[in-house]
Amino acid sequence: MRAILISTGDELTSGRTVDTNSSWLAGKLLNRGIRTLSHHTVGDNADEIAAIIRNAVRRAEIVLVTGGLGPTPDDLTRHALADVLGTELVCCEESLARLQEFFQRRGHKMVQANKIQVMIPEGTSAIINEVGTAPGILSSLDESLVICMPGVPVEMHAMFESAVTAVLPASQLAVAVRVLRVYGLGESNLSERIDDILSDRCSNVIVGTTVAGGLISLTITATDDNDASAAALADQTAAKLTTRLGSLIIGTDSDTPASIVAELLVSRKQTLCLAESCTGGLVGEMITSLSGASEYFLGSAVCYANTAKRDILGVPQDLLDDYGAVSEQVALEMARGSRRRYGGDWAISLTGIAGPEGGTEDKPVGLVFIGLVGPDTEHVFSHVFASQREQMRQRAALAALNHLRLALLGAE
Amino acid sequence: MRAILISTGDELTSGRTVDTNSSWLAGKLLNRGIRTLSHHTVGDNADEIAAIIRNAVRRAEIVLVTGGLGPTPDDLTRHALADVLGTELVCCEESLARLQEFFQRRGHKMVQANKIQVMIPEGTSAIINEVGTAPGILSSLDESLVICMPGVPVEMHAMFESAVTAVLPASQLAVAVRVLRVYGLGESNLSERIDDILSDRCSNVIVGTTVAGGLISLTITATDDNDASAAALADQTAAKLTTRLGSLIIGTDSDTPASIVAELLVSRKQTLCLAESCTGGLVGEMITSLSGASEYFLGSAVCYANTAKRDILGVPQDLLDDYGAVSEQVALEMARGSRRRYGGDWAISLTGIAGPEGGTEDKPVGLVFIGLVGPDTEHVFSHVFASQREQMRQRAALAALNHLRLALLGAE
Repeated sequence: MRAILISTGDELTSGRTVDTNSSWLAGKLLNRGIRTLSHHTVGDNADEIAAIIRNAVRRAEIVLVTGGLGPTPDDLTRHALADVLGTELVCCEESLARLQEFFQRRGHKMVQANKIQVMIPEGTSAIINEVGTAPGILSSLDESLVICMPGVPVEMHAMFESAVTAVLPASQLAVAVRVLRVYGLGESNLSERIDDILSDRCSNVIVGTTVAGGLISLTITATDDNDASAAALADQTAAKLTTRLGSLIIGTDSDTPASIVAELLVSRKQTLCLAESCTGGLVGEMITSLSGASEYFLGSAVCYANTAKRDILGVPQDLLDDYGAVSEQVALEMARGSRRRYGGDWAISLTGIAGPEGGTEDKPVGLVFIGLVGPDTEHVFSHVFASQREQMRQRAALAALNHLRLALLGAE
Repeated sequence: MRAILISTGDELTSGRTVDTNSSWLAGKLLNRGIRTLSHHTVGDNADEIAAIIRNAVRRAEIVLVTGGLGPTPDDLTRHALADVLGTELVCCEESLARLQEFFQRRGHKMVQANKIQVMIPEGTSAIINEVGTAPGILSSLDESLVICMPGVPVEMHAMFESAVTAVLPASQLAVAVRVLRVYGLGESNLSERIDDILSDRCSNVIVGTTVAGGLISLTITATDDNDASAAALADQTAAKLTTRLGSLIIGTDSDTPASIVAELLVSRKQTLCLAESCTGGLVGEMITSLSGASEYFLGSAVCYANTAKRDILGVPQDLLDDYGAVSEQVALEMARGSRRRYGGDWAISLTGIAGPEGGTEDKPVGLVFIGLVGPDTEHVFSHVFASQREQMRQRAALAALNHLRLALLGAE
């Protein structure tokens, strides 16, 4: 079973936007035993979109198109598909009713431009968009399925998971995928430790590494004739990697330090509060991006100004004067102050120099102190992270959550 | 002058790695007046690479291929190019000498596998790689230039800048790009207001819309014979759009509500503090992602728990009991409390139902109250945003910053 992915949009061809939809879709298809032959990106031009769809249906059983379903005149995917199918665009009444209801619920008036979004080529079906206004389109041509989805990733992801997976044909090849999430060492160090496993590209278990936001994902893809044997192969490699890497592996799939900390706190019926300076609210944001956070998260005193560290967290002015806001002493007092203020079982604090200004020889850009105060423990950790501002903040936030993870696991 | 970009590698087709080379190259080409027609990604398969190169030279004067020049058996771009050109691979003696010197300098022994990297199709030229071991390949076929570069971004970037730009034909076409950032209405409403401008896809000024994170970017691309006239055309369209859209345009290029608010606060020498519930620190994070935030940002009291709203922000318990945490009354008291605690000139508060749980008929998921308290003003705004948790939080954060922007501009 083979797929070809097509993404559309001048913003993609011209390089203003990186296409992340194709790689997301390829990964999802692979999990279902469907191999992606190629990706193609074309601009907002109906003839070019039509030509690439025509070419794709000759080579693959599944053609997924993203983008070009919006309400503006440069959204031309539906026109291209109608051209390929040799049919006219007709109004999908069910989608129109949904769209009217969508606007009504929000108290907005539906404008004429939106109506184009519910036009689909005759003989095709609309796919419900749970997240936005543009339905997808499901069609078949010769022996191939052609499925058009919105280009906005959040809408496309939801549509793929909720509706497209249900219509994809089953593959003969069994595929088992395991993802291990690694935190705490660089990609080249990791690569050295598991070089033998990564280099083996001929067996039917392949391990790939990707890095995003300071976490490394090890994706184990095993293929075999049946589900059980593919799963066994994948599990075998996962076990080998787990033995090799120990507590550097924080979890599986989409686990993050925040989600692991959440699980540990819930199971212990404990609560967490924060005191953030350099991260400005990022750690709180990471924690509350998970639903159900109110069960264990009380809040974060983001104290960017020194006066706020003093007035809200009760950090003594003389500590700020003597050691500076970015110091072990202040980090500890921030964590203590947060724990006192919010009444949490655990408190983490972060104070550092995010740059690009403000570094000194003693305290370079990238330096961060992380305070960790719990029921029977008080610690301050220091790190120096890469000097890019956003990267440093991201790394500091992950490090803080990882210290808490290890403390909750009793390893620190 | 038209280009087609080809990237190769199983790690790309299978989705393990996102192709960032194509968008990088497209941007660089556009700056030189060269329009990219399409991007294509194929796996490590010599026949497929050859087929896509053959197809590309029929449609574009410039074909840039990235990846597949390494020393391993799955690096097949040179073989595919030789096939397309109908020639044999021969050793490039100059590259071989460079490669030997490269290994010698590092005290490493050159292994046999590396030698394949200096093989190029007869009649083509090697392009020096300043950063890695794989030379690029420069060839021409019919009327087109076909240039192969390594897939590793840092090597490709260096080779493009140092050698490829020198051989690219000069474009007759001058290009000017302007980006306007719009906030505060949906893409379809925007489209209706400027439909005539967006629909005009034949003139040499094209306006494209992209949506990311709740902001719409209008990208104006003007082409003409010389830089000055292209710039004039782009500026003319930018002016027309600015007149049409007024304060819905928040800025240009990569401006965001946070960056605009920062500019306005700095110019007024005023400070800001926050009280966040549903956003969990996101607004503070957005503000502090800009360096220099300490000039105007004091902090954010992230109060997720009701006890924190009461103890830290001083929200009266009876307001929480009578109206609930997600209410106009509590939003106003949160903003007042933050302003009192931190002593800022302006305070914004956010309290809402991020979901997916916790919605009721009266207070649906997506409802958010935003309090805004300033030197002479107190307001509470309510919104209902799309129901996905992360999207809702993002939209709420942007709305809050936009209310402050409008208040600072005196429009509210």
